[in-house]
Order: sequence, then structure tokens, then C-alpha cells
Amino acid sequence: MKVGETHYRSIWHDSDTWAVSIIDQRWLPHRFETVQLDSTADFATAIRDMWVRGAPLIGATAAWGMAKAIERDSSDAGIDATWELLECTRPTAINLRWALDRMREHVRPLPIAERALAARELAVAIADEDVEINRQIGLNGLELIRAIAAKKGDGKPVNILTHCNAGWLATVDWGTATSPMYHAADAGLDVHVWVDETRPRNQGALTAWELGSHGVPHTYIVDNAGGHLMQHGEVDLVIVGTDRTAANGDVCNKIGTYLKALAAFDNDIPFYVALPSPTIDWTVSDGVRDIPIEERNGDEVRRQLGRLGSERNKNSLIVDSGNSADGATTEIAVPPDASAVGNPAFDVTPARLVTGLITERGVVEASTASLAGLFPDLQVSRSA
Amino acid sequence: MKVGETHYRSIWHDSDTWAVSIIDQRWLPHRFETVQLDSTADFATAIRDMWVRGAPLIGATAAWGMAKAIERDSSDAGIDATWELLECTRPTAINLRWALDRMREHVRPLPIAERALAARELAVAIADEDVEINRQIGLNGLELIRAIAAKKGDGKPVNILTHCNAGWLATVDWGTATSPMYHAADAGLDVHVWVDETRPRNQGALTAWELGSHGVPHTYIVDNAGGHLMQHGEVDLVIVGTDRTAANGDVCNKIGTYLKALAAFDNDIPFYVALPSPTIDWTVSDGVRDIPIEERNGDEVRRQLGRLGSERNKNSLIVDSGNSADGATTEIAVPPDASAVGNPAFDVTPARLVTGLITERGVVEASTASLAGLFPDLQVSRSA
Repeated sequence: MKVGETHYRSIWHDSDTWAVSIIDQRWLPHRFETVQLDSTADFATAIRDMWVRGAPLIGATAAWGMAKAIERDSSDAGIDATWELLECTRPTAINLRWALDRMREHVRPLPIAERALAARELAVAIADEDVEINRQIGLNGLELIRAIAAKKGDGKPVNILTHCNAGWLATVDWGTATSPMYHAADAGLDVHVWVDETRPRNQGALTAWELGSHGVPHTYIVDNAGGHLMQHGEVDLVIVGTDRTAANGDVCNKIGTYLKALAAFDNDIPFYVALPSPTIDWTVSDGVRDIPIEERNGDEVRRQLGRLGSERNKNSLIVDSGNSADGATTEIAVPPDASAVGNPAFDVTPARLVTGLITERGVVEASTASLAGLFPDLQVSRSA
Repeated sequence: MKVGETHYRSIWHDSDTWAVSIIDQRWLPHRFETVQLDSTADFATAIRDMWVRGAPLIGATAAWGMAKAIERDSSDAGIDATWELLECTRPTAINLRWALDRMREHVRPLPIAERALAARELAVAIADEDVEINRQIGLNGLELIRAIAAKKGDGKPVNILTHCNAGWLATVDWGTATSPMYHAADAGLDVHVWVDETRPRNQGALTAWELGSHGVPHTYIVDNAGGHLMQHGEVDLVIVGTDRTAANGDVCNKIGTYLKALAAFDNDIPFYVALPSPTIDWTVSDGVRDIPIEERNGDEVRRQLGRLGSERNKNSLIVDSGNSADGATTEIAVPPDASAVGNPAFDVTPARLVTGLITERGVVEASTASLAGLFPDLQVSRSA
């Protein structure tokens, strides 16, 4: 989507040199920086340390990491080593392994000399497929929003709540949860998005940044606020993304998603999950029980990154803002150093709380039968 | 409770000079500072700008604000003016008005010459009553914890989740939600507390600080984490405080409490609310519908206060930490400046989600009949 006047994807290659670049998302929304990735270590760092985040973008980045490694070493052993190195960078993201497997399975049967080009072409295809999938998700979600807008008829915008950043920054373009919002705004529908801050990493700031860049009205709120807003009629629907969806429709997504699903259910508000089919893990039949939850470094909870103050801080609580320039970023620590911290990064929302799954093939109930019915091809091939 | 080797209350007076002091809680847990309050403007600022917070402490501070004003001007007009000035500082806290009314009603019938001393004595009594009420809440809550500990028998601690700071810093001493925890720890029970960060103001850092100071094991978590922990058996009970309880048992408390109540209900985990009887608003029969929710300044959401980095930050994301000394505090801004922010400060948890109310007179069901039965004296006098 747009950044200033330029249309960006979140990962792209130079069509002459095949050099691969990403947006280093650690600095957003404070600074917009792009960086070129080359070595496998570069790609591993970018995934593990969340320069890129979001299941589809992690998949595309992993695919490019494989492609760049195969440029240098097309041997079976080299491919396997890269697979191993990249696979362990993020334990929860199903797309990571999916992309790595797909690259390896595509390239390994080929003669050594053909592997580098084939790997690049598949990495390009994986990225392009993601864009097309997200566009389809957006078109399907748009119809849900259109139906709610038609029913409202109170002259107020359709209020959509979202959690985390399932935006274009988390995919190659369009985003998953945001794609219906972008499509609705582009179609001239009156929409407004409640953006959950999404502690501990505040990815809501990314969502706010990208919605703002595209001109979609939105309001940034703390994660605690959504239940109250739902109680008081301020939310018409919830759309979130997912890092991994179990075959039974249980949805693993950023920590806190489950709480919003409970509140939506309690207030009879539709709760939708936007997901590309590669996010479905057909091998897991009970997501709440069987999806392992990544416990991340406690410093993510202790510390927060933000911009230092400017004129606006003159009357604030600042004791010592240092001598840094306006807009520079720094980290602060909030809890006492002596306190233990816990940092489970995801939770699983049971299918019973999910109104529907917005996929590239349509909107379906969150159930084993519905998912298998919509994706008979994938369901068979993946569970075999 | 203890700060270092000294036992503090959160508000106290000098028995010779009647000078009133508080802990300026804006700087906790980073710095421990006390400040003397004198003028009515001092007290109004301390309440409005949250140098003191928590319903009971706000009540005690308001009472002392009245007493100090009456020292200077004991006239009916002076008393009324102080009442007006202090009453509008925080719209949600029922204790504020309760304390102001009680001071005025006590003093107004007296001869002018007797008012100053009577006002001081009543302010002392209000503070002492709060301490005794919280002690009783703690003893009643202790029995709940003891029963759960006896049933567990798995050698693991009783895991208690709490939201916000309903600790001794929010009362005069003991706290409300924390009083059972302090009593349980003092009684030698093996307890562990999950402390919700409680965005936007991060009062969980205060709870972590006071639990740590008293030696109670605890873990600081983001507000998003509690649902996941409950799903996986890591929480045995929830105890929160309340700023205002409706006569039907609906509980108005810090924003986000409702989400934790939903999660506790969904996982069959007891959800208790600790409340002193002055927190009950007998005039409100439907809390969800009728309690007005304070919308606070959006800068509370935009900005966060914390300690600047030290050695620990050497390998972190710091771009410019300024030249400030270790432990100095500053504010950062997280979301884009261009984004709108919303900041509802409280939400209301419906009585149907509350397992019980822990009061100074015992633990009862959250219902009109139970509350009226336990407090027939208050119920009659306040609703008359």
C-alpha cells in the first residue's frame, strides 16, 4: 500500500540484481527504513528479531532466504542446512515451515544448475500469491462490511475493531484483517477502525500508521478498552488475523485476541478472522490443546520503544528528556526490575467464539467440516 | 505496609502540626517521594492528576482536604466552596463524594469554633476506618485462599490474578484486593500473584512494587495475557478492586476488568471483587447502564512514563538515550501523532460474571438481595 506517494510491498526484489529488501519494521511508526537482506543469517535475524512479522510476510521472507542461499550453494546439503537454520527462528508461525518446505520440495528434484533460478521464481510466486490471496480476502470481507453498513442506516460509520497488525506490513500487500477495511474505504463505505495497542510490542501503532497512511479513519485504544466499547454499541464487528488456524477452526493469534472474542460473543457482535489458507494447520485438530505457545523474552514486557518528547512535553512529567532531537526513539522500563515478568506471545481462540473465517475462497463457519469443505484439495494434501 | 524498613500509610498527618503528607504516586515504582498538601488547590491537584488514586485513598484525601480548608475558613460558605471544588476532581469515584458529604454533614451543625478540630478528628477517623475495613476484607479473603490452597494439594502456589492497583497505595493501608494476598502471605500460605500491567497508566507496576516490597511472589504480565493463563490452569482465582459497585452487584473498576471477568467465567475460575462498603452506590440499580464512564485525556494512551535505560540497554534498540543518569524517568510516545486516541478509564463488569464480593462484613453473592441483606443499615440510610 502507499507510503507517502510511493506504493510499497513489505518485501521486494530488484528485477535486475535480484537483491531483496524489506522494511525494517522495528522502527515503525517512528521511522520508515528499508534494509537489504543477503546472507541466511540476515534473513534469520530479520525473522527472529521481528524486523518482519506476520505469518504471510514471515513465509515470503523465509522463501526469499532459501532462494538467496540457493544462489550461493545449490547442493542438497546446503538447502537442508538453510531449511534447518530458518525453520527454528519462530516456533509458532505455520507459514514459515510451509514456505521452507515448498521451496525445498520444488528445488530438490531439479538439476543443480537450474535450482537458483527456480528458487527465485518460486519466491516471487509465493509473494505474488500472497498479494492475490489477500486481495480476495478483502473482496470477501468487503461484502460483510457492506451488509452491516446497509443494516445500520443510522448515518454512523461501521465500527470495526482489530487487534495486533494483520495489515499489509504483516503480509506482502493488502494485509489480511485490514484488506476488507482498505477495500471498504476504497469503495467509499464509511468505516472507522478501533485499533488495539496490542501490548507488549504495540503493533497497533503499526496498524494505526498504515491506516493513517491510506486515509482510513481510526482510533488507537489500549487493549483493555474493547470490552467496554462493545458493551456500549461502539463496535459493529471485529476482524483479526491469525498466525495459525487449527483444522477445527480454533484460531491462534496475538496474545489478547481470545479476550476480544469473549467480549464480542458476550455482546452478540460478529467476530471474524481473516486468514489465507496457508495459515491453516491441517495436522492440528484441537488448537486450544495442541498449539504450542511461544514464551518470548520478558524484556518485551519490561521495556517499550517510543519517540522522545518534543514541545508537547513541556508541561508533562518529564524529569530528564536528555538532549536528543525531536522524534528520536528510546526505550523505557515500566515495572520494577526486581519483579518477574511473563510473556506468552499468542493465545488460542476456540472456534465456538468465532463467527466466521474470511478466506480467499469465501467466508465460512469456523469448523472442521466447513474448512474441509472449502479446501478439499489442501485438506487432503496436507494431512496425508 | 512496608517501604524498606519503615511502615507507611499512603496518607498521614503529623500529630503535632497536623501537616498532611502523601506519597506522590506519579513517580512510583521509579522513585519514592512524599509531599505535603496544604491548600485546597493542592488537594484538588493531587486527586485530579492522580498523585493519589484508588477510591478509598481518594476519599481519605478529600476528607483531609476538607479538614485543612476548614482550619482556614470554618464558615458554611467556605465549607460549601471546598466541597464544590473537590467534588468535581474525579467523576467516577463514589468515595470522593461520600467523604465530602460526611465531612460537611458532621461539621455544619457545630459551632464555628469547634469545626476545625472536629473536621480533623473525622478525617483521622475516616482514614482509620479504612485501615480497619481493609484488614477485615483481608481476613475474609484469606479464608477463600485458604480453602483453594487446601483443595489444590499439588504443591503449587495458589495463583491469584489481579488488575490495576487495588493495593495499599490505593487505600490508606492493606489495600482491598491485595489485603487477602498480604494476609495469606503473612499466614505462610504459598501464593503467587499475576499482576496485570493495566494500561494506559500501568498501575500494575505499583502493585508489583508493593508486593515486591512486602515479599509476595508475583509476575508482571501484559493485560492481554490473563485469558491465555486462565485457559491453561495457571490462575486459581481473580481478585480485583472496584471504584464503584452498583446496588445490584455490577462492578465499575479500571478499564479491562470486564475482559478478565469474561475469561474467568469462560474457564470456571472464581472472580472476586474486594470492596469496602463505602464503595457501594446504593442509588444505582443497573451499573452497566447507569454508571457514567470517565473519558480521560488521550495523552495517557499516547505516552508512557518509565525509567531510561542503563547497562541493560547496551544491546538494545536504543538510538539515543540522552545523557540522563540511570534511573531517571522520561516519557515516550508510541502511536503516530496523527492518529486519534480513545481513553475510557473504567468499565462495568455485570454481576452475573462476579463469583462474590469480599466486604468487611463477609463474602456475599453479587446481587441486590445479598448486598441489601449484608448492609441493611447502609442500604436504608443511603437510598433514603
